[in-house]
Amino acid sequence: MTQEKKNIAIIGSGLVGSLLAIYLKRYGHKITVFDRRPDIRNIEFSGRSINLAMSNRGWNALKTVGIEDEIRKIAIPLDKRAMHVIGKEQYFQKYGKDGEAIWSISRGVLNKRMIDLAEENGVDFRFEEKVWDIDLPEAIVYTGETEKGEWKEYPFDLVFGCDGAFSRVRHKMQRRSRFDYSQDFIDVGYKELTIPANADGTHKLDKHSFHIWPRGKFMFIAMPNLDGSFTCTLFMPFEGDISFESLKTKKDAVHFFNTYFPNVKDEIENLTEDFFRNPTSAMVTMKCYPWTYWDKVALVGDSAHAVVPFYGQGMNAGFEDIFVLNQLIQEFGDDWGHIFSTYQEKRKPNADAIAELSYRNFMEMSSKTADTNFLLQKKIEKHFSTKHPEKWIPAYSRVTFSNRPYLEALAEGDAQEEIMKEVMKIPDIAEKWDSEEIENFMLELIK
Amino acid sequence: MTQEKKNIAIIGSGLVGSLLAIYLKRYGHKITVFDRRPDIRNIEFSGRSINLAMSNRGWNALKTVGIEDEIRKIAIPLDKRAMHVIGKEQYFQKYGKDGEAIWSISRGVLNKRMIDLAEENGVDFRFEEKVWDIDLPEAIVYTGETEKGEWKEYPFDLVFGCDGAFSRVRHKMQRRSRFDYSQDFIDVGYKELTIPANADGTHKLDKHSFHIWPRGKFMFIAMPNLDGSFTCTLFMPFEGDISFESLKTKKDAVHFFNTYFPNVKDEIENLTEDFFRNPTSAMVTMKCYPWTYWDKVALVGDSAHAVVPFYGQGMNAGFEDIFVLNQLIQEFGDDWGHIFSTYQEKRKPNADAIAELSYRNFMEMSSKTADTNFLLQKKIEKHFSTKHPEKWIPAYSRVTFSNRPYLEALAEGDAQEEIMKEVMKIPDIAEKWDSEEIENFMLELIK
Repeated sequence: MTQEKKNIAIIGSGLVGSLLAIYLKRYGHKITVFDRRPDIRNIEFSGRSINLAMSNRGWNALKTVGIEDEIRKIAIPLDKRAMHVIGKEQYFQKYGKDGEAIWSISRGVLNKRMIDLAEENGVDFRFEEKVWDIDLPEAIVYTGETEKGEWKEYPFDLVFGCDGAFSRVRHKMQRRSRFDYSQDFIDVGYKELTIPANADGTHKLDKHSFHIWPRGKFMFIAMPNLDGSFTCTLFMPFEGDISFESLKTKKDAVHFFNTYFPNVKDEIENLTEDFFRNPTSAMVTMKCYPWTYWDKVALVGDSAHAVVPFYGQGMNAGFEDIFVLNQLIQEFGDDWGHIFSTYQEKRKPNADAIAELSYRNFMEMSSKTADTNFLLQKKIEKHFSTKHPEKWIPAYSRVTFSNRPYLEALAEGDAQEEIMKEVMKIPDIAEKWDSEEIENFMLELIK
Repeated sequence: MTQEKKNIAIIGSGLVGSLLAIYLKRYGHKITVFDRRPDIRNIEFSGRSINLAMSNRGWNALKTVGIEDEIRKIAIPLDKRAMHVIGKEQYFQKYGKDGEAIWSISRGVLNKRMIDLAEENGVDFRFEEKVWDIDLPEAIVYTGETEKGEWKEYPFDLVFGCDGAFSRVRHKMQRRSRFDYSQDFIDVGYKELTIPANADGTHKLDKHSFHIWPRGKFMFIAMPNLDGSFTCTLFMPFEGDISFESLKTKKDAVHFFNTYFPNVKDEIENLTEDFFRNPTSAMVTMKCYPWTYWDKVALVGDSAHAVVPFYGQGMNAGFEDIFVLNQLIQEFGDDWGHIFSTYQEKRKPNADAIAELSYRNFMEMSSKTADTNFLLQKKIEKHFSTKHPEKWIPAYSRVTFSNRPYLEALAEGDAQEEIMKEVMKIPDIAEKWDSEEIENFMLELIK
């Protein structure tokens, strides 16, 4: 569909900002992307990131705009979890059916490639230009060195806020009346760590696995990079017995890794060094509404809906926002008022759903992994799902390997939970969990 | 207890700010109150307020600092609701036991008196001085004409944010990591209206009643002022069939008042004029945490916990914050770090409880007043409570005529609700609701 050419500002040159720029440029609009930070292509990407797991929703958005193949080149498929449980050999859990995988990508590498692609398409980037204010009804962007200094004024037709969880654009909308907003931090923080490549450039752990060291209240994960290294993340409470606060010295840290992560012992030196060099970051669930202002301003990605990272869907959800926006542009053409209002109505319930799913995953991981009833329930679900793959799609698959709305995945998950409540009430369920009786009972309840 | 003298800033000269100033001045501290607005004593107080209902918690805080009697002089006791139901004669519902009343006070009149009292005590007020920024760890306050203009810098020992639901002080705290925050607007707005006094200065409606015209999705209330007038509030959805949006012309408004509020028909002219002159205001529930920063900064009142006004507890909750702060000062002396951390731990659950109670009251009023089951339940509760006043204290009394924690009132309300669920399940409950059988059933459940 041809569109009246607009002069469009995108605030934020992150993953969502640069993908949106590519999409909108295809319609012939003039696109300017502002970022307060320097061009990520010219700097060492700093260590406060969790590696990304691109899944179906993300790929879908990249495919539609024709850059899927380009990005596959810098991604590594992971078709399974590698579980590192104390006192057990490493074992594997396949994610889905054959051919189903999530893809590990370094945030820095991906972002650089996306900005390159956007520039090749004719998008104009203005790095190190800080946006301090937006005139919402007039779509005017104000930038300057400091908040109190001289400002430049740029008039636009449309402004997109792709400036993340602590968005300036949303911040401006938030000061208006009747703007709902919440930010909720969890008591667990994370720290990026690295396991370097072997001397010959190969990976020290299985390359096609998402590595997990579950330890109850804390957890260590590792995802492969192209250069043979792994980007690792340590999730741990900020305060308490075993916490970031409690590890004060190098000796503490060495002892910690030795005790809880014995099979990474060759890396201790390295991990310990990173431990005190890298920052400890917080995680937030951020919700707001509305997401748009008239036909002038819209929030996309984390600025509209930041989630905790325990479903690996943050970027995927942001990319899906863009996919949906594009569908609405196809449908409604130049009617940006209609595009924006439909966009927020369609996406808001799904954003809330993935926020809930992500938070529940966090709660499960941090409080239920030692609960034998919970583990039994999961075992029953898995057993049943393997026998009846069409009747019982695991929540993880619905979220990760499908493009059906998040809200649907949440609702189906709740329905499965209701069924499992009944199943778990059965006397002696621990003995007969894999019996035909239980199977038939569940088949009956699904009807 | 004597205290080391501190140099203290209070941001906001509203009810909470001026009461806190009086309290802290008693300890000999140097108190400066900043307010961006002009001195309320020199201006016509503008019409966007709901009259205040001072109840036990508020009086308690005033009494402790010795100004209860002063304030009683400008308050009118209301010992009952006057219900104006279409097709019925006006009827009355007593609030509590004999001597129990809420007290109607005009916000403007009260605020002026409180500032006078604070000044008489030696508090320094700086009106029309806008605070733009706070250095939290250093307790430095920055003020100026405009956000981008020249700023003055004031160093303090302590800063209190009493600057309401849209607090600048909280705003500054909110930009920090791990600060939880939410603002949730309801879809109903309100407008202040006035019923003037009779020519001889007497009240046109019963002076000692809180007047309510419940109309399902909307509601009109009136509270008496000393000068014979009533401050009225129309609560109504912003959008929809009968809404602020739907009343566009004077004719619409006249028709609206004639249809739904026939017994105020002599006031229509006046109400209609106010209707288009006065703003329509929004209502928000605001929660946040933490409320304090080290031993330097604390939020008190609406800046920490704004609630919807349907329990009449907003000001009372803010005054109770001060009462509790004062208790902790008595207990911990100069240890402001301890005072602040204990203050927020003690008050936060109670602030959340009154937010929940206030929101539930809103939901009850707007969606349940036409539900016959709900009305029957209320009738049973009232009947039982009259017979067994010690065993069944109505939620309203626990909140309004007691100083027990809000959290306790909420928990007891939930327990009563559980009992009533069982009662309402009884077949033919509509017939035998006032029977001995039901009474005994309830007595059994209370045990």
